[in-house]
Amino acid sequence: MKNVASGRGLAGPLFAPRRVALVGVSDDPGKASSRPLAYLRASGYDGTVYPVNARRETVAGERAYPRLLDLPEAPDHVFVMTPPDAAIETIRQCAELRVPLATVLAGGFADSGPAGQARQRELARVAADGGVRLLGPSSIGLVNLRNGLRLTGNAVFGDAGFPVGGTVVASQSGSMIGALVSRGTAKGVGFATVISVGGEADLSVGEVCAATLDDPDVTGYLLFLEAIRHPDRLAAFAREAAARGRPVVAYKLGRSAAAAELAVSHSGALVGEDDVAAELLAALGIARVDTLDGLLDAPAMLHRLPLPTAPDANAAAGASRSRRRPAVGLVTTTGGGAAMVVDQLGVRGVEVARPSEQTYQRLAAAGVDVAAGRIVDLTLTGTRYETMRAALEVLASAPEFDVLIVAVGSSARLRPDLAVLPIIDVVRGTVPSALASPPTPAAEPAGPVGGGPVIGAFLVPDAPQAAALLATAGVPVFTTPEACGDVLAAAFARRPPRADHRPYSPDPGRPGVLLDEAAAYRLLRDVGFPVVDHVVLGLADLAAAGVPALPFDYPVAVKALDAALPHKTDAGGVVLDVPGPARLQDAARRVADNVAASGVRLERVLVTPMTRGLGELLVGYRLDAQVGPVVVLAAGGTLTELYRDRAVRLAPVDDVAARAMLREVVAVRALEGYRGAPTGDLDAVAGAIVALSRLADQPRVVEAEVNPLVVAPDGQGALGLDALVRVLPGRTS
Amino acid sequence: MKNVASGRGLAGPLFAPRRVALVGVSDDPGKASSRPLAYLRASGYDGTVYPVNARRETVAGERAYPRLLDLPEAPDHVFVMTPPDAAIETIRQCAELRVPLATVLAGGFADSGPAGQARQRELARVAADGGVRLLGPSSIGLVNLRNGLRLTGNAVFGDAGFPVGGTVVASQSGSMIGALVSRGTAKGVGFATVISVGGEADLSVGEVCAATLDDPDVTGYLLFLEAIRHPDRLAAFAREAAARGRPVVAYKLGRSAAAAELAVSHSGALVGEDDVAAELLAALGIARVDTLDGLLDAPAMLHRLPLPTAPDANAAAGASRSRRRPAVGLVTTTGGGAAMVVDQLGVRGVEVARPSEQTYQRLAAAGVDVAAGRIVDLTLTGTRYETMRAALEVLASAPEFDVLIVAVGSSARLRPDLAVLPIIDVVRGTVPSALASPPTPAAEPAGPVGGGPVIGAFLVPDAPQAAALLATAGVPVFTTPEACGDVLAAAFARRPPRADHRPYSPDPGRPGVLLDEAAAYRLLRDVGFPVVDHVVLGLADLAAAGVPALPFDYPVAVKALDAALPHKTDAGGVVLDVPGPARLQDAARRVADNVAASGVRLERVLVTPMTRGLGELLVGYRLDAQVGPVVVLAAGGTLTELYRDRAVRLAPVDDVAARAMLREVVAVRALEGYRGAPTGDLDAVAGAIVALSRLADQPRVVEAEVNPLVVAPDGQGALGLDALVRVLPGRTS
Repeated sequence: MKNVASGRGLAGPLFAPRRVALVGVSDDPGKASSRPLAYLRASGYDGTVYPVNARRETVAGERAYPRLLDLPEAPDHVFVMTPPDAAIETIRQCAELRVPLATVLAGGFADSGPAGQARQRELARVAADGGVRLLGPSSIGLVNLRNGLRLTGNAVFGDAGFPVGGTVVASQSGSMIGALVSRGTAKGVGFATVISVGGEADLSVGEVCAATLDDPDVTGYLLFLEAIRHPDRLAAFAREAAARGRPVVAYKLGRSAAAAELAVSHSGALVGEDDVAAELLAALGIARVDTLDGLLDAPAMLHRLPLPTAPDANAAAGASRSRRRPAVGLVTTTGGGAAMVVDQLGVRGVEVARPSEQTYQRLAAAGVDVAAGRIVDLTLTGTRYETMRAALEVLASAPEFDVLIVAVGSSARLRPDLAVLPIIDVVRGTVPSALASPPTPAAEPAGPVGGGPVIGAFLVPDAPQAAALLATAGVPVFTTPEACGDVLAAAFARRPPRADHRPYSPDPGRPGVLLDEAAAYRLLRDVGFPVVDHVVLGLADLAAAGVPALPFDYPVAVKALDAALPHKTDAGGVVLDVPGPARLQDAARRVADNVAASGVRLERVLVTPMTRGLGELLVGYRLDAQVGPVVVLAAGGTLTELYRDRAVRLAPVDDVAARAMLREVVAVRALEGYRGAPTGDLDAVAGAIVALSRLADQPRVVEAEVNPLVVAPDGQGALGLDALVRVLPGRTS
Repeated sequence: MKNVASGRGLAGPLFAPRRVALVGVSDDPGKASSRPLAYLRASGYDGTVYPVNARRETVAGERAYPRLLDLPEAPDHVFVMTPPDAAIETIRQCAELRVPLATVLAGGFADSGPAGQARQRELARVAADGGVRLLGPSSIGLVNLRNGLRLTGNAVFGDAGFPVGGTVVASQSGSMIGALVSRGTAKGVGFATVISVGGEADLSVGEVCAATLDDPDVTGYLLFLEAIRHPDRLAAFAREAAARGRPVVAYKLGRSAAAAELAVSHSGALVGEDDVAAELLAALGIARVDTLDGLLDAPAMLHRLPLPTAPDANAAAGASRSRRRPAVGLVTTTGGGAAMVVDQLGVRGVEVARPSEQTYQRLAAAGVDVAAGRIVDLTLTGTRYETMRAALEVLASAPEFDVLIVAVGSSARLRPDLAVLPIIDVVRGTVPSALASPPTPAAEPAGPVGGGPVIGAFLVPDAPQAAALLATAGVPVFTTPEACGDVLAAAFARRPPRADHRPYSPDPGRPGVLLDEAAAYRLLRDVGFPVVDHVVLGLADLAAAGVPALPFDYPVAVKALDAALPHKTDAGGVVLDVPGPARLQDAARRVADNVAASGVRLERVLVTPMTRGLGELLVGYRLDAQVGPVVVLAAGGTLTELYRDRAVRLAPVDDVAARAMLREVVAVRALEGYRGAPTGDLDAVAGAIVALSRLADQPRVVEAEVNPLVVAPDGQGALGLDALVRVLPGRTS
């Protein structure tokens, strides 16, 4: 694994190269590969640009060189636009010239079957051997909006100017760099740099972002992700970004592919690839949004809302039971507009907080004549600067809110002086200003004077002028209620990045072998996981010597014990409620006869006491191919799988995280005294989750699932009643 | 109930009045009540406008009249901007002058406590007695974009011009008329008329929309709703609109308030106000969207997608088991942009359909070199007019799609000639055109030549020019992936309006009285609902004469029988698994002793055979205060309530609708052979739902709930094992 520092040395060649070569640049203005030269010439980039084209002496009227090796000096960034095989040859030439960095546009590598995968390995090997760092393949290039470096053929960058901001954009999806910049421009949102990372054969999202960590103008990061390819590098970057107070927001494709592959265990069906990716992002303090507008609106809000310091403290924003939940206040000049925000927050589990009695008294004292309710609705007062300003001054110093959203109605479009300007003035702590003297751009976005809630605005009509005024003044703006709900929910769900995230290099394809239930219990007990008492009886011994004394009372369960029987109930391998020793031998014989039909010649049975509790949960552990060890909590049974009701965390987890998982699983509420039912021992369940997650210390364990984990009444524990464990062959435990 | 036809006579006064009076118009340009006069003068409205102001001789330089009665002629539309009490007086004067219609701006009526409610009754009475139809109170007015009638103070309408279209907008939320028109304008979407219906003391959403049914330029309807106030009028209108092929789309607030009041039955907690409103909209063929962008984008798409003709045929778009599901094809020049659409459709239960082998062969024959996959991804072919056109020509005549979405990448922004123009040309069936000769506006939006799928576009970058080109050419355009998913899911979920929807005037506040379980069973059997066999035994008889012979086998259940014990299990009023007559008397005694603690002196017990099945469901019926009789299907038990897993329909329902309900409830899948489990008798469940819904014929039944309905294996039926019925006092059954 390359370390983060290595990424930083790349900042120059990546974002401010002095000598750029365009290999395969086209002379045909109808082709996308002609655009980088045109863009660089038009955009004011002040480095040297060398066109390289094997078949033309000139390109766009400029001298072109036949090969990279023919250039008068070595470039520090080569943009390779040739087909795959020629691209590998170009990288060879880069190595010869000691070029530090090359961007490869061509597809046809790892995304093109086994031949393409072999080609990608060759590309990466040639680059690594030659000391050339690679962006791509399938990178559509990168753009530094601050110095005119438009090293891309993306059609959007033919536009003359784009606003500049502090956010770095990194996208696995090439075309999205143009989509995000154009959409940001329409909103008045600017970026620092946008990078298409492509197939990440070498440089990954984490590394290119890390290369900007020392850039003092950068304020945050926006990621467009298709998959998690290099979790360790992403983790190293995310921790550094959090340490510098720079928020990271991500939009990740794959939400709908969650109906995952069927695995030998239920956990596989319960937790798909996207769930694991979601948990990795959460564990790294990265806010994940679900709307495209939200992705663009998020940086401004996240920048003002500090990451929670307590791990998993807000993880249950979607549940109704966490103790201190982030509070959103809502002020409006339009009831219907505000109601949309209430709804969009509500469906995401964020409630709008009602101002306190004291706050309403202060509003009245400030001359704001408004009926007390969940939202401060100024509709009937008329839309006036003085009223809005007075209301905001009171609310901005009210202790009950973390965020205050001002929903501005129709006046925002043509009369921003009425309800938009007071927002700006209160946030800046200035005396009332007039539109004639618009606010100067805020170098560093400001919160309200004297702390208090972060103030944001939702503009109910289309009001681009107001949006621009607010954005320029450093006020987070939302133009749809969905984006407002999305961003705030994502912001509140953030956790501080885990310091203990372990390096994990994805290593799929090692299925391991199943242990029998007794061996599984031994392994679980070793990590402190509570399992049911049990005795192993050999069928031959039973026949020869009869039933021995058991260390627990009857009735008991008799189960076939053989690693080849993961689904023993289906095979008739379980007899429950055996009332006494007289019936045990018969039960063992029945079990053996039944499983013989599955081709298993049974030698041993497992005997356990019958155990019942208030409810049953499922806990699972697995080495995920994307991110490494994860734990899962879910309710037991078929219905839960249908509902996909579960919580996932990177392993190991501590008690705080285990309790957050309990809050996320809806079925757990049935064990919390819901509708007068008795409460289950959730302390014991939390302890069991923590114990199971310790399997992360045992790299030979590929998967472990306890189903059911029977939950007894409060104070009486929880016990695993069945277990399925797969380990890599080799040592036995 | 007023009939629809009465609404139509209102079209003139509402949308094309010849003489408008503005009562309470202000001379102070800083006040919103000054704006209607200014707007009418600036917008080219060619009728007569009379300012009325009790305290000024002139307003905005025009002669003002002190009272309505002082006008030289009677207006045909009076816009009343005075405070509430003066407004009532003005309506009196309207009556005197035989003014057909008045719009009342003031709030402070039904939304302001008991005094306000009394004031609203007075307002409505004065109007009705005087023959004046009312829009409002709390109506911010209305705007006819086709004739300059800007009868509103909403700040947005100070803009000079807005595009005109065929969609009528009606909003219960006043300020939203400005928000919708401004947002539509930004998208190039025009409207015919926008109306703020306010508190609907007289004219409701349904009636104002019905007033435009004979307007030949109207193509569809867009509703912004806070609540369902007049379901019958909405129903009458929706049926007429569907008969004329005009789609209706609604955005309704209240999604998040779904965590409903706790009722005596579970159905109350399972089905909230918003669920019932959602079902009413669905039953009326109204598409409900969840995003603000989707609301504006929907009419263009809905106009091209006919309502399904089979009732409930597509109702299970969200489930994975319906037979013929609407198929969406996807073509793109950008993988990432298309993937967002796939995701947003997928999370709403709509899958992107893979083109057939034959279609891929036709694409190859047409020179479109693309790898076969779920989406037709042209990324690697380069973005070219010829390629896109050839691909669209093949796909537009492929039989497998209902809708074809073209996701256009970065080229859309500056080069709409490459991938946007071919869409337009294929939809219009024209020869390739050039941007130099833009398409002329389509009077009637056109589908692709020769039928085939409806073609829509999703623009991945910000590309307003392309959006306008497409909209003008009659191609539905989406600018966010969320709106695309939202609109298509809502379109596919539509059902034809129910012809049998019964007039229902909301009549809350009649709680009814509980029947005991035996009486409840009698009532259920009368409508054909299958309930468990049972015998009623008097405790005195039992003591005197012993246990009689039962008409069913032991073991049996013994249950306290008393209407005062709706939750008899909690009260210890149930003993299960009574093995024989010897124990029955003892069980009855225990039950009586237990319920004595609840203050019930038990006289009778109900005895039923013990019955077990594969699973348990809940079916419920109630007279909903908003919409009248509804049926609910849900899984039984606490977890299901936590998951809110249920389906709702207006009662009565037929077998087709009952089966659609079964498809909507996730828990039902556990009874469909999921993971090899045996299948339950869902035919019997459907029959039970149909039977229960017949209670709609018995207006004295307020609520009925069967929980559990035990589902036996396929072919063996389903039986209600407990029932809770409330009826209005009076006749006994």
